[in-house]
Amino acid sequence: MSIKPYVLTETEYVNQEELTYPFEERGLQFGDGVYEVIRVYHGEYYLIEEHVERLYRSAAAIKLEVPYTKEDMYKRLDQLLQLNAFTGDGKVYLQITRGSAPRDHAFPKGVGANLYAYVSDVPRKLDLMEEGISTITEPDVRWDLCYIKSLNLLPNVMAKQTATEHNCFEAILHKDGKVTECSSSNVYLVKDGAIYTHPATKNILHGCVRIRIEAFANEAGVPFHEEAFHLEDITEADELFLTSSTAEVMPIVNVDGKTVANGTPGKITRLMQQAYEKDAGIPEDASIFADRSKNKSVS
Amino acid sequence: MSIKPYVLTETEYVNQEELTYPFEERGLQFGDGVYEVIRVYHGEYYLIEEHVERLYRSAAAIKLEVPYTKEDMYKRLDQLLQLNAFTGDGKVYLQITRGSAPRDHAFPKGVGANLYAYVSDVPRKLDLMEEGISTITEPDVRWDLCYIKSLNLLPNVMAKQTATEHNCFEAILHKDGKVTECSSSNVYLVKDGAIYTHPATKNILHGCVRIRIEAFANEAGVPFHEEAFHLEDITEADELFLTSSTAEVMPIVNVDGKTVANGTPGKITRLMQQAYEKDAGIPEDASIFADRSKNKSVS
Repeated sequence: MSIKPYVLTETEYVNQEELTYPFEERGLQFGDGVYEVIRVYHGEYYLIEEHVERLYRSAAAIKLEVPYTKEDMYKRLDQLLQLNAFTGDGKVYLQITRGSAPRDHAFPKGVGANLYAYVSDVPRKLDLMEEGISTITEPDVRWDLCYIKSLNLLPNVMAKQTATEHNCFEAILHKDGKVTECSSSNVYLVKDGAIYTHPATKNILHGCVRIRIEAFANEAGVPFHEEAFHLEDITEADELFLTSSTAEVMPIVNVDGKTVANGTPGKITRLMQQAYEKDAGIPEDASIFADRSKNKSVS
Repeated sequence: MSIKPYVLTETEYVNQEELTYPFEERGLQFGDGVYEVIRVYHGEYYLIEEHVERLYRSAAAIKLEVPYTKEDMYKRLDQLLQLNAFTGDGKVYLQITRGSAPRDHAFPKGVGANLYAYVSDVPRKLDLMEEGISTITEPDVRWDLCYIKSLNLLPNVMAKQTATEHNCFEAILHKDGKVTECSSSNVYLVKDGAIYTHPATKNILHGCVRIRIEAFANEAGVPFHEEAFHLEDITEADELFLTSSTAEVMPIVNVDGKTVANGTPGKITRLMQQAYEKDAGIPEDASIFADRSKNKSVS
């Protein structure tokens, strides 16, 4: 996950060590900002329109003015990859805060937004995507407006840390038993050949990969129900999987120490992985389904 | 609100312009930290034990190790005022984050917490405390663990901004009509000689001044009920007031454009202001109740 040297800011490109923030910065004191994580495969963005559109929606929802027009944003994000001569698999992390100003809850006047975006290597998690991952379940204690991709991520951090301490990849969040999403991914249950996931209300992040899953399902003739499932439904589930920009389509084979169905990734999960790889333009030799026995990747 | 030159960090005292943060800092990317605002009168801390105890409780709740022992914390906070030769009315803002590390939701390993604390001038809001302030009401969309004084303050920021845009001092937050607190203060209703306020559950901040209000009420023989009131109760309220470390005991005389009772601060609010000034050691000539007609302070 090494960061490439040039970082995009609200005004220019700087070398990463030059980019520092004063201690009176609204990102640092209030989490007053929004962000995106955009996947890059072989030096090309995947789903960039979806991410940029969501970024502007998140910013508008908190009345934050993005320093660039959308047209400029696309140009600059492209320049960021070029300047770093980035041709591998990675991600661009981009955040915008309401600027650096003396601490006061209300918006500062005459202060522009701060932005930074950097690219780093993120190898695909091929072994995990092949074998599936384990999860825990945790109460969803987050705020009511999780559709805004904001920097207020403490509950997500705490849930992910608890998962990590249980040697799990993710925490499945629920409100009184009703599953919303995971700490940094959307989650789906498969039952009798259909996919179920929480509707895109204000309570969950409207994942960019989630939009594609719906499209993949429609194309494959798999019913896609925006209908929340419950913790007790997991016991009877045929398959469970999650999606995110860095985890892609990740089979869940264990929840709270209990195997999901027979403990191996299911047929519809595999179908979604295949559709994802095709959509993202992953070459065959880099596929989850390629023979990697001689050259096992490190997950 | 000018900041004094020396800032306390996790290791030393630095000049404020020297203190900068890298862009991969958990405070800046996740709001992964906790904070306190401690009132200072005439160069002396007020309720410092309450604030330090709460800081350690907040930190423990998010599994964050404070870089000092409590004993050291008191010493260093005293040194901060001394080093800045601070003898006026002000506040110390102190925050601790989980450190600077490559972005990953789970806790970083081998990275120490970052801390900073600075002192700034905060004149008492005498005119407002004399005349009372106006408020709006807003849905409480915050997370479930508001007793943790965390850096995840975006909903508070948004509510305060809405209040400011309505020329109001604060936003009274409610969950389906049940009043929890304000965006950065606790709130109290007076009816038939008794004080009502939301119980100190996980849903509200356990204000340091709130603890004193309970004590002041007990000493004055005023019944203090930890019992949430509702928006519709405000119409019938005799008095309404809020408390915080910088707003002290602030009468609320208007809610959503409607006057509270007869639109002037009430008797029990005045009693609490008097008790507060006595407790904080405010000299008589600096009191809200002193004759300031010749020398009106700027609020």
